[in-house]
Amino acid sequence: MKLATQRDGGRDGALIVVSSDGCRWLAATDVAATLQLALDDWDRVEPALRALSARVEAGQGDPVVAERLRAPLPRAWQWLDGSAFPTHGELMQQAFGLPPIETDRPLMYQGMSHRFLSGTEDVPFPSEADGIDFEGEFGIVTGDVPMGCSVEQALAHVRLVLLINDWSLRAIAPVEMKTGFGWIQAKPACSVAPFAVTPDELGTAWREGRVCLPLQVSINGTWFGSPNGNAMAVGFGDLIAHAARTRDLPAGTIIGSGTVSNATHADVGSSCISERRAIDMIAGRPPMPFLGFRDRVRMTVDFDGRSVFGALDQEVVAS
Amino acid sequence: MKLATQRDGGRDGALIVVSSDGCRWLAATDVAATLQLALDDWDRVEPALRALSARVEAGQGDPVVAERLRAPLPRAWQWLDGSAFPTHGELMQQAFGLPPIETDRPLMYQGMSHRFLSGTEDVPFPSEADGIDFEGEFGIVTGDVPMGCSVEQALAHVRLVLLINDWSLRAIAPVEMKTGFGWIQAKPACSVAPFAVTPDELGTAWREGRVCLPLQVSINGTWFGSPNGNAMAVGFGDLIAHAARTRDLPAGTIIGSGTVSNATHADVGSSCISERRAIDMIAGRPPMPFLGFRDRVRMTVDFDGRSVFGALDQEVVAS
Repeated sequence: MKLATQRDGGRDGALIVVSSDGCRWLAATDVAATLQLALDDWDRVEPALRALSARVEAGQGDPVVAERLRAPLPRAWQWLDGSAFPTHGELMQQAFGLPPIETDRPLMYQGMSHRFLSGTEDVPFPSEADGIDFEGEFGIVTGDVPMGCSVEQALAHVRLVLLINDWSLRAIAPVEMKTGFGWIQAKPACSVAPFAVTPDELGTAWREGRVCLPLQVSINGTWFGSPNGNAMAVGFGDLIAHAARTRDLPAGTIIGSGTVSNATHADVGSSCISERRAIDMIAGRPPMPFLGFRDRVRMTVDFDGRSVFGALDQEVVAS
Repeated sequence: MKLATQRDGGRDGALIVVSSDGCRWLAATDVAATLQLALDDWDRVEPALRALSARVEAGQGDPVVAERLRAPLPRAWQWLDGSAFPTHGELMQQAFGLPPIETDRPLMYQGMSHRFLSGTEDVPFPSEADGIDFEGEFGIVTGDVPMGCSVEQALAHVRLVLLINDWSLRAIAPVEMKTGFGWIQAKPACSVAPFAVTPDELGTAWREGRVCLPLQVSINGTWFGSPNGNAMAVGFGDLIAHAARTRDLPAGTIIGSGTVSNATHADVGSSCISERRAIDMIAGRPPMPFLGFRDRVRMTVDFDGRSVFGALDQEVVAS
C-alpha cells in the first residue's frame, strides 16, 4: 500500500492512497485526516486504508500531480538518523586521516523534524560556501514503540518505508561534530519522496529490516550513483531498539539508515558528494565540487518496473 | 503573565492562565485550546490572554492543584539545548583530563521533544547503572523565527521563559559524545516546571537574554545548589540566532541554557550531580553517587517572594 499527503492549505496536508504504479489517487481523509492521525490509530484505520488501496488499484481515482504532493509527514515528532553503512565511514576516515569512531552501538543523531520538504520544492540555503551536499537514505516510520523494545520485537513496529534526502552542509559538519554535541546548522530540513509504502509493497526487497534495492541518484541529469540498501551493517530493527532503550518512540517517529554506501563504489557510485570527494582524494584526483545554487538533485528507487517512492527532484536555491 | 497546561485527557492538555502567586487559574481554552495553538497565533491571542491574566490577578479563578498541571508544552516540535555556562565545561574537563571543546560557536544539541514530563510525575529509567542525573536549566520558547535571524533581532522572538530539568544518563553520555553524533540514549525526556512565564513576569531579573535568578535544587529535601542564571557566556539571543542560521524555527521551539553553573560553586553548589562529582574529584574527595530509584529531585526559582515557575518535584523510578 502506498500513502501520500496532498496539499490542502493546512499544516499537515490531506491523506491520500495512491496506486502501486503511482499514477492515481483516492482521498483517505474520511478514514484519517492526516498521515500522523492514521499512524496514531493504525490498527483501527489500516483495514479501511487497505480497502481504499484495493479500489485505486482497480482503476478508481484521479491522476497524481507530483507538484501537489508534500512530504508524507510534512512535520514529525521525531527524526533519528543512523549511519548504518560502514563503507561510508571508512572512506571518510581514510580520506581525512581520521581515527575510526569508537563505539559498539549503532551511530545515530537526533535531527530537526518540524519540517520535511516535498520531492519537488526548492531547497533554500544561506550560502554556497557552507558546502551544500545531499545524502540519499532509506527511512522507516514507526508506530508507538515502548521503551526497552528488543531488536526481535522492533520490526513489528515498522509501519511505512521512505526515501529521504538528508541535505547536509559539509563546511559546518566537522566543526559541529568535533564538539560531540551532534549537528544543528549542518543538518537543515530533509526532503522526503512523496510515497510512503508499507513493507509488503517492497515484496522480497524488504529483508532483515533492510530495503534491498538500489537508490538511483543523478545531479543535473547525470548519473551519480546507485548504491544498494542491502549493505546496512545493522538493520532498522537494531536502529529502532537502539533509539528506544531509554525513551518511548511516538507513532510517526522517522528513523533513517544514513547515507547509502557500498564497498563496490567504483561501480555503483555514491549517494552523497562528500563520499565521492573522499574517493577522489584517495585516488589522487581533484575532488568533485559541492553543489551550487541552481543545481538539481534527483533520487528514485525502482522495483518491478515501478518507482516505489516517487521522485525527489529538487533545485538548490539561495534562501 | 503566567501560562500553564492542565490535564484534560487530550495529548496536549488545556491552556490556562495562572495568577502571579501561582495560586489561582482561569481557563483560556476559549482563546486558544492549547499552548501550542496560542504560540502559533501569538500576536492575535496575546491581548485576550493578558485580559484573562488581569482577571485572575484580580482574584477570579479556581485554586491551582499541582498534580493536575502538565508540562506547559507536553510535546513540542523542537527542543535545542545549549551549554552556555563555561564553568560547567571547565570543571568537567579538569576532573576528567579532557581537552577543551574546540569551537567558536555556542554549543547546542537537538534533543527529544515529543514528550516533556510534568513537575510532579515519576521519572522512569531502565537501570540505576546508567548513572541517573539531572540538569537544572532555564529555557525559552520562541515564536516563529525566520532562517538567518540576527542576534539583535532574536530576543524579540522570545515568548515564554521556562524552568527545565534535563534528565541525563552519565554512564552513556561520554560514549555517545565520543561519536560526535550527540546524545540519544543519554538524553531521555526532560521535565518542565508548570508555569511558562512571559519575560515581563521576571521584571529586572530578565536581562540581556538571561534569567538572573538562582535556581534552587534539593535532593531528598537536602539543599544541593542555587547557582544563578546570570552567568551564561552567551544569552538566549545568541542561542536563537545560532539555531536559526540554516533553518526556520517553528513557534513553540524550546531552547535551553544548559546546566546552570557558577564559578562560585564552593558557595552556591551545582545544578547537576556530574559537576558536583567533578568538584569532589578535583578536591580529592570520593565523588557523590548518582541517583537511585526512589530519590526525589526538587527545583524552584523564587523572585519577589513568589515561585516563578512552580516546582519540579519528582521521584526517580524503575521503568
